[in-house]
Amino acid sequence: MNVYIHPDPNEYEKLIQRPALNTTDVSGIVSEIFDRVRREGDTAINKYTSHFDHVELKSFVVSPSEIETAAKLISKKLITAIQVAKKNIEKFHRSQKEKTKAIETTKGVYCWRESRPVQKIGIYIPGGTAPLFSTVLMLCIPARLAGCKEIIICTPPDPTGNIHPAILYCAGILGIETIYKVGGIQAIAAMTLGTNTIPKVDKIFGPGNQYVTAAKQAAQQKGVAIDMPAGPSEVLIIADQSADPEFVAADLLSQAEHGTDSQVILLSDDPEIVDRIIREVEKQLVFLPRKETVQQAFIHSRAIVLKSIKDCVEFSNMYAPEHLILATKNPKKLIPLIHHAGSVFLGRYSCESAGDYASGTNHTLPTNGYARNYSGVSLDSFVKKITFQNLTKKGIVNIGPSVETMAEAEQLMAHKNAVTIRIKKIKSQK
Amino acid sequence: MNVYIHPDPNEYEKLIQRPALNTTDVSGIVSEIFDRVRREGDTAINKYTSHFDHVELKSFVVSPSEIETAAKLISKKLITAIQVAKKNIEKFHRSQKEKTKAIETTKGVYCWRESRPVQKIGIYIPGGTAPLFSTVLMLCIPARLAGCKEIIICTPPDPTGNIHPAILYCAGILGIETIYKVGGIQAIAAMTLGTNTIPKVDKIFGPGNQYVTAAKQAAQQKGVAIDMPAGPSEVLIIADQSADPEFVAADLLSQAEHGTDSQVILLSDDPEIVDRIIREVEKQLVFLPRKETVQQAFIHSRAIVLKSIKDCVEFSNMYAPEHLILATKNPKKLIPLIHHAGSVFLGRYSCESAGDYASGTNHTLPTNGYARNYSGVSLDSFVKKITFQNLTKKGIVNIGPSVETMAEAEQLMAHKNAVTIRIKKIKSQK
Repeated sequence: MNVYIHPDPNEYEKLIQRPALNTTDVSGIVSEIFDRVRREGDTAINKYTSHFDHVELKSFVVSPSEIETAAKLISKKLITAIQVAKKNIEKFHRSQKEKTKAIETTKGVYCWRESRPVQKIGIYIPGGTAPLFSTVLMLCIPARLAGCKEIIICTPPDPTGNIHPAILYCAGILGIETIYKVGGIQAIAAMTLGTNTIPKVDKIFGPGNQYVTAAKQAAQQKGVAIDMPAGPSEVLIIADQSADPEFVAADLLSQAEHGTDSQVILLSDDPEIVDRIIREVEKQLVFLPRKETVQQAFIHSRAIVLKSIKDCVEFSNMYAPEHLILATKNPKKLIPLIHHAGSVFLGRYSCESAGDYASGTNHTLPTNGYARNYSGVSLDSFVKKITFQNLTKKGIVNIGPSVETMAEAEQLMAHKNAVTIRIKKIKSQK
Repeated sequence: MNVYIHPDPNEYEKLIQRPALNTTDVSGIVSEIFDRVRREGDTAINKYTSHFDHVELKSFVVSPSEIETAAKLISKKLITAIQVAKKNIEKFHRSQKEKTKAIETTKGVYCWRESRPVQKIGIYIPGGTAPLFSTVLMLCIPARLAGCKEIIICTPPDPTGNIHPAILYCAGILGIETIYKVGGIQAIAAMTLGTNTIPKVDKIFGPGNQYVTAAKQAAQQKGVAIDMPAGPSEVLIIADQSADPEFVAADLLSQAEHGTDSQVILLSDDPEIVDRIIREVEKQLVFLPRKETVQQAFIHSRAIVLKSIKDCVEFSNMYAPEHLILATKNPKKLIPLIHHAGSVFLGRYSCESAGDYASGTNHTLPTNGYARNYSGVSLDSFVKKITFQNLTKKGIVNIGPSVETMAEAEQLMAHKNAVTIRIKKIKSQK
């Protein structure tokens, strides 16, 4: 961890830089795979699965019996844990439902909004070493609450052609029956273009590596919405001298274990607590199975001491972290000062892993500074809001003349006429 | 207008097609201009303005005196109309503010969301024949209500180097002082990359031609958010025999005058009313200054008679119109059946132009079928929602074991440890 004591504000710009992303241009392979999936459909999917996932599948459709069996393949303890998480995620996301309220903007002019679900949702769950079943919960629960009609999951098969039972179990308890053993660019291409087996969707959600990210961008260019742009995970912790070094160290480590490109940033007004936290990091690190990953992530991580906690919050706003932990004496006082962050964790008992799994908030959050202009996933991500308006006779008579004047000034005479013709008729009826 | 009586459902797919967009590949010119603006900044802006807008400007920054003078250059009547629209738009968008409500998902676990403004907003207002000052209201009012810190407008100068005073007036009354006489791809490039004069923004809003649309897509690839993908404007009207043919005809015409690529669709269960509406269209058309535009738009427009009004709504959902007018006897009954639309107008006095200008709803809406997966612009478009969580000792003890179990199952041991270490300390304190 690189330590900076009272750096010059001119250096801030450098200090908020993310680790350089792997900038290999993957657009060639993305358009090649999209092209082939468009032309050959399922045949292309099978070819790419064999090529990239090194497995020949009889069918890439997960069978009902595979989903049924899943519950028997995971521990009772894990089932209970998942149920706790599910309950909390449901409770928090259900609270995001909006009530319809009509506003009478002018006498006789009623306007309101109503939510409608996005109908076809495609969810991508990455493969790799860890089975990200928690992401199944985080994406499928709000999709279900929103009332989305068709929810499909694509996730790459392991070398034996299977999907981790925890992923299937989470999908199963949420009533998701359409799961495909397809990963990578070809999964995103299939959900964007449709094949004989995999339906075209309206919106694609889910994390992934740089290939999946590039494929999602290509999907967006083709009219499919996506959850948000993606980048490596990150945490920024603001700790004052009241912080518990053990807790802060554990939080820094838990972010760093996500990947070598994860970034952890520690801010404080107190060099001593920084020192104690760093020593504690070294102590805890020894016991971690992902030690090498963590150590590599720490190469581009920073501990920065600034003049005050307020300065730390300002710096954090410049960085716009995905996760922001306030390990300070009175974290609630800092809330109004926070302008950009994905999710904020207040005080010593609100660790990031609580939000990653089970507190109820969503863990799909804007990274890479996107917290400046994007929200994390919520119920809102699965609905559109339609505006409605209802004008009475009185309503059109009241605002009609303004509409006529503005339409004329914009040289849109038919727009004006649509009002004129109505007002004329209303007056002739009197 | 092409009329289809009870078409075969197999034909629906064809009938919901939009007019083929001009598919010239503009990506070459977009990346050329972005490149040059990145390298040469303001110099490039000046060159492109001279080249595309045929005008040499001393400065492309609108001066305070230009904004001040604007009010004197437009009529009192227009000023009053704008004030009516402003009041209604403010009222409706202010009602979209959300109250913060903390949810206790489990005893001791508190989660909530708070909105924060996107800080830097770039608004594009197209040039051309009509001065779209109404779009200034539609985009700047919610930006102001959201509390966005920096709002800038880019709009191309006319051949004399000026901006229409109605545009400047609307910006002025909303306290927007930073307006640039810059249009086209170069405006979007400047707001994406920043120049010495024009600041880089977080999110770009506003309509435009295919060049501006492609430039906004390029901006999105570079990390700047955009309002939504764009396409030609469109209306779908469902009329039953209770409809007033004069009103419906006027609404069809007002949509068609937007451009030759606009699309108007009329659905009904009654061939006779369709007939009467078409005759009325021909009658009103004669008096319109934009007759040629309207006639061309009508070439790819359709009147379709289906078995029932319910069938019409189903067809409308397939089409996912930007504007949906329900010119039926009991339009409110149809609301629950509507799944996809940008904005819905209920009954005979709710004409589209009311919503285009002054009822209070936003007129920046999803076109081209994007109503399936995007909402129109609202206050939400100018804020991000940050999640917060606060766990008490009791809270972490309650959900901690679930977090530990799930983290372990995902092989993220440092995530587990962040909980274990806290629970251990809590128990040791007892």
